[in-house]
Formats: sequence, structure tokens, C-alpha cells
Amino acid sequence: MRATVLVRPKQGILDPQGDAVETALAHLGFSVTDARVGKVVDLELDATDPAEARVQVEKMCVELLANPLMESYEVEIHG
Amino acid sequence: MRATVLVRPKQGILDPQGDAVETALAHLGFSVTDARVGKVVDLELDATDPAEARVQVEKMCVELLANPLMESYEVEIHG
Repeated sequence: MRATVLVRPKQGILDPQGDAVETALAHLGFSVTDARVGKVVDLELDATDPAEARVQVEKMCVELLANPLMESYEVEIHG
Repeated sequence: MRATVLVRPKQGILDPQGDAVETALAHLGFSVTDARVGKVVDLELDATDPAEARVQVEKMCVELLANPLMESYEVEIHG
């Protein structure tokens, strides 16, 4: 079973990488008013039940993939 | 108009960050057989037409956000 986790800097948290992307895009002539950069983590799991897989992945987010003080996360489970 | 870009290492391209995540998850006791790490970029655009926005964002991917030799990208345009 496959899962995708999106980890993003929370609103109000400084995001220097996003600022750099915004500046670089402006220099290239693009009209962008905000850019934020986070991580996407694609996982291949042994779990076969979608509900169980989601529980496992949420736990991975809390324990390793995201810093809950500064980052929010979103979990998608694929069939 | 908002857009989300997912940038992932292509299949066959080494992904040391993904390998590190896989090893760390295994050490924490999770059953994960593969992990790949990429970037998510959230953009706020001036464009008001979804088709025009997509063209712009695809151009940003080619010119800045992704390295087409090593990375694939996926663009989502939100209302």
C-alpha cells in the first residue's frame, strides 16, 4: 500500500526557501505573490488495510516526518 | 489563484534523503519498504485564468523549480 505525506511550514513560520523561490521567480519575470516550500514523502507500506495504514503514517508524521511545532502535514493513502 | 507543485526524484535516481527516512522509520519499528522524498511548492499567482496559470507554472518548473534530468513534477491549480 502506498502513502503520500505533504509536510508544509505552518502559517507565520519563516520559510527562507520559499522566500528564495519567490525572489528567483520574480527575477525570471513571473508574477508570484507568495511561495512556500515543504516536503513530499512517498512511502511504500506493508500494511494492507487503508485505515491501519493511515494510523501508521500519522504516527510516522508525529515521530519523524514533521515537526509539529513548525510544520503541518497531510496524509493520502493510495489503494 | 493558487497552485501546488510536487517535485519528486525520478525512478532510478539516487535519493539519500529518502533512504535516510526509510532507515529511521525502520529503526522506529515501522514496516516501510520504500521512502522517497521530494518537494512541495505552494504558489500564489496573479493569473486569474486556470489554463493560463497552468502554462505559467509549468514554465516555472522547467526554468527553476525542477531539474528535468533528475526530477519529475506535477502541477495542481486550485480555484
